[in-house]
Amino acid sequence: MSPAKHIDLYDTTLRDGSQGEGVSFTVQDKLVVTEKLDDLGIRYVEGGWPGSNPRDAEYFEAAKKLKLKNARVTAFGSTARPGKTAAKDDNIKALLAADTSVVTIVGKTWAEEVRSSLRISLAANVDLIGKSIAYLSKRVDEVILDAEHFFDGYATNRDYAMQCLQAAIEGGAKVICLCDTRGGSLPEQITAAVTEVRELGAAVGIHCHDDSGLAIANSLAAVAAGAIQVQGTMNGFGERCGNANLCTLLPNLQLKLGYKCVTARQLRKLGETSRHLYELANMIPDRQSPYVGMSAFTHKGGLHVSAIKRNRASYEHIDPEIVGNAQRVLVSDLSGKSNIEYKAKEFGLDVDNRADELGGLLAEVKKLEKSGFQFEGADASLELLLRANLNGKEAFFKLIGFRVIDEKRHEDEPAQTEATVMIEDPDGNIEHTAATGNGPVHALDLALRKALVRFYPTLSDVTLHDYKVRVLAGEEGTAGLVRVLIESGDSEKRWGTVGVSHNVVEASWQALVDSLAYKLLKDGRSRTRKARAK
Amino acid sequence: MSPAKHIDLYDTTLRDGSQGEGVSFTVQDKLVVTEKLDDLGIRYVEGGWPGSNPRDAEYFEAAKKLKLKNARVTAFGSTARPGKTAAKDDNIKALLAADTSVVTIVGKTWAEEVRSSLRISLAANVDLIGKSIAYLSKRVDEVILDAEHFFDGYATNRDYAMQCLQAAIEGGAKVICLCDTRGGSLPEQITAAVTEVRELGAAVGIHCHDDSGLAIANSLAAVAAGAIQVQGTMNGFGERCGNANLCTLLPNLQLKLGYKCVTARQLRKLGETSRHLYELANMIPDRQSPYVGMSAFTHKGGLHVSAIKRNRASYEHIDPEIVGNAQRVLVSDLSGKSNIEYKAKEFGLDVDNRADELGGLLAEVKKLEKSGFQFEGADASLELLLRANLNGKEAFFKLIGFRVIDEKRHEDEPAQTEATVMIEDPDGNIEHTAATGNGPVHALDLALRKALVRFYPTLSDVTLHDYKVRVLAGEEGTAGLVRVLIESGDSEKRWGTVGVSHNVVEASWQALVDSLAYKLLKDGRSRTRKARAK
Repeated sequence: MSPAKHIDLYDTTLRDGSQGEGVSFTVQDKLVVTEKLDDLGIRYVEGGWPGSNPRDAEYFEAAKKLKLKNARVTAFGSTARPGKTAAKDDNIKALLAADTSVVTIVGKTWAEEVRSSLRISLAANVDLIGKSIAYLSKRVDEVILDAEHFFDGYATNRDYAMQCLQAAIEGGAKVICLCDTRGGSLPEQITAAVTEVRELGAAVGIHCHDDSGLAIANSLAAVAAGAIQVQGTMNGFGERCGNANLCTLLPNLQLKLGYKCVTARQLRKLGETSRHLYELANMIPDRQSPYVGMSAFTHKGGLHVSAIKRNRASYEHIDPEIVGNAQRVLVSDLSGKSNIEYKAKEFGLDVDNRADELGGLLAEVKKLEKSGFQFEGADASLELLLRANLNGKEAFFKLIGFRVIDEKRHEDEPAQTEATVMIEDPDGNIEHTAATGNGPVHALDLALRKALVRFYPTLSDVTLHDYKVRVLAGEEGTAGLVRVLIESGDSEKRWGTVGVSHNVVEASWQALVDSLAYKLLKDGRSRTRKARAK
Repeated sequence: MSPAKHIDLYDTTLRDGSQGEGVSFTVQDKLVVTEKLDDLGIRYVEGGWPGSNPRDAEYFEAAKKLKLKNARVTAFGSTARPGKTAAKDDNIKALLAADTSVVTIVGKTWAEEVRSSLRISLAANVDLIGKSIAYLSKRVDEVILDAEHFFDGYATNRDYAMQCLQAAIEGGAKVICLCDTRGGSLPEQITAAVTEVRELGAAVGIHCHDDSGLAIANSLAAVAAGAIQVQGTMNGFGERCGNANLCTLLPNLQLKLGYKCVTARQLRKLGETSRHLYELANMIPDRQSPYVGMSAFTHKGGLHVSAIKRNRASYEHIDPEIVGNAQRVLVSDLSGKSNIEYKAKEFGLDVDNRADELGGLLAEVKKLEKSGFQFEGADASLELLLRANLNGKEAFFKLIGFRVIDEKRHEDEPAQTEATVMIEDPDGNIEHTAATGNGPVHALDLALRKALVRFYPTLSDVTLHDYKVRVLAGEEGTAGLVRVLIESGDSEKRWGTVGVSHNVVEASWQALVDSLAYKLLKDGRSRTRKARAK
């Protein structure tokens, strides 16, 4: 077998990706992203547009000190401004000041845009491209042309679009990257254009946007037609519908098509890198994202779950570990006994020869789900339920009652909330506490912990990360059932709990109580583990 | 020009889509979805799997009463269980009991799966497919085969996969739908397989999953190779990485490829239908979703914004209005002011020569939106706000205060709720009322109406139809901001109101008060109209 053909990945998360709504990186974030991408084995990391904002210039200064193993930091900018020579253009000066070995220059190739946006003659634009690239090619190792709107230009004035590329090649561009700037092209259009551009003799790159949901397919079509560089962003960050998602492209190229982009070891870092970038960008991860999403290898339907227990390839196109992801199974009213068994084993419960009990548990779970419970985001509540049924309930504390008062005394003043909680501690003492809060659930949370923390000091480590409310049975309006999901965590892990009631306060109370009970269960387990280790 | 070729869209949001993590629909939700999809012009609406759970059976019973204009409700199920004849199989019985004109049957076509999952001989499986379909074909108008794992089967044991299809065709299947069940196939594999299957002479459908980010491209490849039915889900809901997203496929087929799926008028409902389904599923909309996402036509970069002001086609591959979306520009208030003006006119407010006041209102709306308000589902609150600012506030009643007590006295007893409300009526009398309810918001609603109804008897006509809670700023847990949307109605119309607070009870109170104030405003208007008519 001949060695696999290499494809260069070019990441523009820090430049094009940061144009996405809600995405913004500090200089420090950008440096971390650069190192993460280097670890992942990405060849080019486009760091920013030094001529466009001071933050990017600062980044390039700092990036020089990074010790990178794989990545070449790349500076991005446009051709010289109309009427300026490259030597006198501030943008080109800033590019050289960034002091990178690679520079990418965007040039317009759609005749209509040259007229309406640049407002110069078509010939003048060709000249700008050629001269800007020639000037830079003498001063840096590698110049790449990003041919903006290339596919639109190719569709409407092919000769002109090709002339622009020709000027760049003559100027010394090492790669001609064809951009589907509006994201509106179809794979067959990409194939035709790339095939013709390859005849110019230059190395071809591809840069796609996802406005038609085809960024991945278009990038792959270009590679099939001979492109050797693929531009994209991590998690598909980017303006409008985003750029081609490198987290999808990389495994497609490497696992499905046999190209070589990174090592197998690097590929296993993909999931973690994706999650880290969501964190840095402060974006909510897309659970459905191919390969790296939280749900990408998650199974819910009972038939599917029993099938993957026999043969996991039934519903998994690849082994998730290869890309740093993992299989997950959910419990829902679509599920069967095999889901419950899978979960019980995951929780470390002994279920051998307990088919009858599992059957009873499944019936109980289905009954709860019918009354509005949902355990998909509430593994901790599910574990408490399974454990109580299979091993007997662990009584960390006994609830007696609570009262919450929300009071608003004047139209212009905010409502005040006070909660009181009464519980019985393990010694049989009644704890009766009170707290005020921003709202009823916040006040209850504070009062409940106040009552318990004397006995269980680790409860003060619990943070409530997220709180979700869903009203069920919409037609009944405010008299309907309410489901509350709470996500809590400590320094080690996060867990989800659920409560259901007609009363949002009571539903929240159930989820809160489960959250704290789970923390105590978890701490008990780790104490046992530590004791055993001694 | 010859008339455009028709492609049938087949929606499986209610069945395959509901396998998505976090997606769950009540029976009422499912009926609403069916009507929305019918309005959108979808040809097939797969409602569920009547043999698998009681909720789906209930749906099919209720769905018979819907008056649909375009859609055929479809029931889904599997072939008869091994060892059962179709006539005696409970699953097949449940399918017929659903009483739909179309039935879709999933049959296995991957030899490996037949062995490992069904655990029967390959021949027995072919027999099950043929006989199940033959039995159903005599009893319903149209039977569709969903050929599970077809592309995996085709790749590893082509003859067997084709034999399964042949049995379905002989049994009378009207459409052979090829499923890329694991979502791992590439467009060229789809093209090759569809081309060969078409030679069998049957109508071909395609059902893709997005595990490689190629569900759209694969569906289009199948259509190019001759498939006439495309299965998918709204918003790409579905297990793992989701199904092929009909909100992307529909405009791609119709606008880019010239196929006919729905009318232009129906296509304009796409954005609204997508958003409505996210709401029903209580899922956070994907802003980046092609065509329908909030960011799909949103521009942020300064250069892009100035370019689209000259020529919007520079960075928009289609006109967003065509699919019911709109252009948005970030860091610019130009779009906002025209929106406010548009809304004010819609509410019948006189805004001529009031540019300054509109500017002030825009600033106020922006401030409220920044603090968490959202007027998209709350036109009534927006109207009250615009009216108060432009015409002065109409004081139907003056709020003094409220108090809500939620109390739980024993672990096994439900919480009790009591609300008290104090208002000043138009004569200057203080009304102080109390009510109990299922929960705090229900009790408040009852107490508030009790206080007002003596003065405003029509308030008893108001029904609260829906109540939604969204927690904003997730990182703060239970201390975060809460947005409440209430949908109310009387015999004439429905209206939406909004409230925002750290306290869910106070946010609900705001939305409740707006709802009743809007009813009084509306009744006042119709009194005026009636008086004028006399």
